[in-house]
Amino acid sequence: MSDRLKINIEEQRQQFPGLLNKTYFNFGGQGTMAKVALDTIIEAHKYIQKAGPFSIEVNDWIQKQVALARTAIANELGTTADRITLTENVTAGCNIALWGIDWEPGDSILMTDCEHHGIIATIEEIARRFQLEVEICPILKTLNQGNPTEVIREYVTPSTRLVIISHLLWNTGQVLPLKEIVTTCHNYSQSKQQIQVLVDAAQSVGSLPLNLPESEVDYYAFTGHKWLCGPAGVGGLYISENAFPKLNPTFIGWRSIETDAKGQPQAWKTNGKKFEVATSAYPEYIGLREAIAIHHQWGNAAARYQRICQLSQYLWSKLQQIDGLICLKNSPPEAGLVSFYIENQDSDRVVKNLEQQGFLLRTLANPYCIRACVHYLTLETEIDNLITVLNSIIAKG
Amino acid sequence: MSDRLKINIEEQRQQFPGLLNKTYFNFGGQGTMAKVALDTIIEAHKYIQKAGPFSIEVNDWIQKQVALARTAIANELGTTADRITLTENVTAGCNIALWGIDWEPGDSILMTDCEHHGIIATIEEIARRFQLEVEICPILKTLNQGNPTEVIREYVTPSTRLVIISHLLWNTGQVLPLKEIVTTCHNYSQSKQQIQVLVDAAQSVGSLPLNLPESEVDYYAFTGHKWLCGPAGVGGLYISENAFPKLNPTFIGWRSIETDAKGQPQAWKTNGKKFEVATSAYPEYIGLREAIAIHHQWGNAAARYQRICQLSQYLWSKLQQIDGLICLKNSPPEAGLVSFYIENQDSDRVVKNLEQQGFLLRTLANPYCIRACVHYLTLETEIDNLITVLNSIIAKG
Repeated sequence: MSDRLKINIEEQRQQFPGLLNKTYFNFGGQGTMAKVALDTIIEAHKYIQKAGPFSIEVNDWIQKQVALARTAIANELGTTADRITLTENVTAGCNIALWGIDWEPGDSILMTDCEHHGIIATIEEIARRFQLEVEICPILKTLNQGNPTEVIREYVTPSTRLVIISHLLWNTGQVLPLKEIVTTCHNYSQSKQQIQVLVDAAQSVGSLPLNLPESEVDYYAFTGHKWLCGPAGVGGLYISENAFPKLNPTFIGWRSIETDAKGQPQAWKTNGKKFEVATSAYPEYIGLREAIAIHHQWGNAAARYQRICQLSQYLWSKLQQIDGLICLKNSPPEAGLVSFYIENQDSDRVVKNLEQQGFLLRTLANPYCIRACVHYLTLETEIDNLITVLNSIIAKG
Repeated sequence: MSDRLKINIEEQRQQFPGLLNKTYFNFGGQGTMAKVALDTIIEAHKYIQKAGPFSIEVNDWIQKQVALARTAIANELGTTADRITLTENVTAGCNIALWGIDWEPGDSILMTDCEHHGIIATIEEIARRFQLEVEICPILKTLNQGNPTEVIREYVTPSTRLVIISHLLWNTGQVLPLKEIVTTCHNYSQSKQQIQVLVDAAQSVGSLPLNLPESEVDYYAFTGHKWLCGPAGVGGLYISENAFPKLNPTFIGWRSIETDAKGQPQAWKTNGKKFEVATSAYPEYIGLREAIAIHHQWGNAAARYQRICQLSQYLWSKLQQIDGLICLKNSPPEAGLVSFYIENQDSDRVVKNLEQQGFLLRTLANPYCIRACVHYLTLETEIDNLITVLNSIIAKG
């Protein structure tokens, strides 16, 4: 089978209403939801009301639908359904891993200086509660020179239990060498216990081709509403087969357990459900499954990634040619995120101005800049139009 | 203003498609979602795609919509929006309270013998992690005689930190005297710290009229998808003004914190958002708000509760007259849940049979029985029809 099916990109874009009335560069904030995802959500709600909402029939149906969604997600990560915990969002997935480790006072967490503030706040509270040390290593400065794996190797110590990285940095668009970092951590010989790696995969799932078992990563937390273009409110956590038995569940509910004949808790589920809680917006799960399926109609993960890189490199090279515009990265991007700023112009004002003209981008606080996200769904002409409007903003000062 | 507006119940029922093709008695499992809730969810998704999905405009809009939903929920509980944490479900709300207390080894949790297995499993894991004692007090047997407050008074000890009850027991339909129990716990003089009360309000929110500040309860966890007839996946936790400052956040994300100019965590939010995490299925929040609004078109909480009681008492009295059918409660119900079983017949088989005939009820495992839930939306004729079919099932043996 060919990587690329016969649907051209213009045809494919018709299936994403959010693309059709504007020029969209915010896939890293939220992806434009596939029309079929919304249609499926609506149909699911209607079916649930028709046959339930609470009935033997509906409960069986939901169980089957959730299993299909879990498998579709697992396929995107190169793994099997049992390794997947479904969550509300990427942050919840990180929290499951962070609160589930049997911390001891004096243990240390190493994180990069590019992590999301939601994760930083969690780590600070965990460190307070369990008397842990937190070290922050300087990955930001490796964007244009140096080796992130070397930085991590330098910063791990015998007390390090967990290293937290993003696979694709949300601020600068840098892709970290996942397998190399995991190997470095797992092989660090001076610690009592093997150092584990937790990945914030907010930007990488749906944009990078992935094979998580091959990477040997321990925990990989993601969301469906960004690059996969599913609905907001569905994400997940991959837990490796090795890491699974030692991780304790924290937030717990009926989905975490098996019950006995008296309905009492008997045992933890032996798969990713062990870390799930209770009733969710199941129609959105089904919507995500359909969103994933529609990407495959255009091409597989490798083909999508290849197109993302072609387009982001095109954008980057055009931005490089604009006087008074600085790209954070001084070599071509390795994924869909391109961060930049305009000299002597406030980025928030530029983004507001762009939004008024139908170009959707966002600012980031650290480093303060503008981020353009290029999806495989993006058109070269959209990039050309963005370049034109940026030139005009610079010309007007 | 009158408690009862001019809409009659037949008219009101037209707005709930799930009621129209069957006879529905599973409101305690999931309420039939209001049509306007689904319409609003669809409109919200469409608007988000049109103006975003990620844009300054959409992010502002979502913030406003979430604030309106929070206020609508707060109104149902007799409180203000700041006291409300929005969660995915009732269990998540219980987990927030349970994991947020600064437990010390030897502290004790007292729970009733009627709590949900999802909560029991959470408590067992918390007890293991923090070396707590767990006591279970016999509330089940107070259904027909005895005083639940007295039972709790008997079981609290100087090491008790937290008492966990359901306001409306999901298995027997008993309503516990909330304020009396809270007062008993708060006034218990032999403990170092005031004993707090956490309520599983899965069955009480949307069915009992509530004034939580007046009850002085500390934590009250609920869901919108049962008696309020909102979509699955939205619930919340009420935290009293007194309990709030001492409760630590556990699962944490960008919604929990204020950030500084560099986007770094600066402080916890000073309201219920402190315990929220990250991106949710926001359209469902808006759906819940609309579901709440539609109930008010028919009548206020007191009027709805009055009708629920009239109908459940009617059901109970009819059931009492059936030979070979035993109601767990031997006096009229105080809310919408009526539990019973048929002598010499397996309850699971009876429920399957009923579902095939278009009557939706469910079994419970402990005590093993069948539960019929009567909403204010229920019709007397539906109850009559249920009685007829139950008589026929008994006649056929």
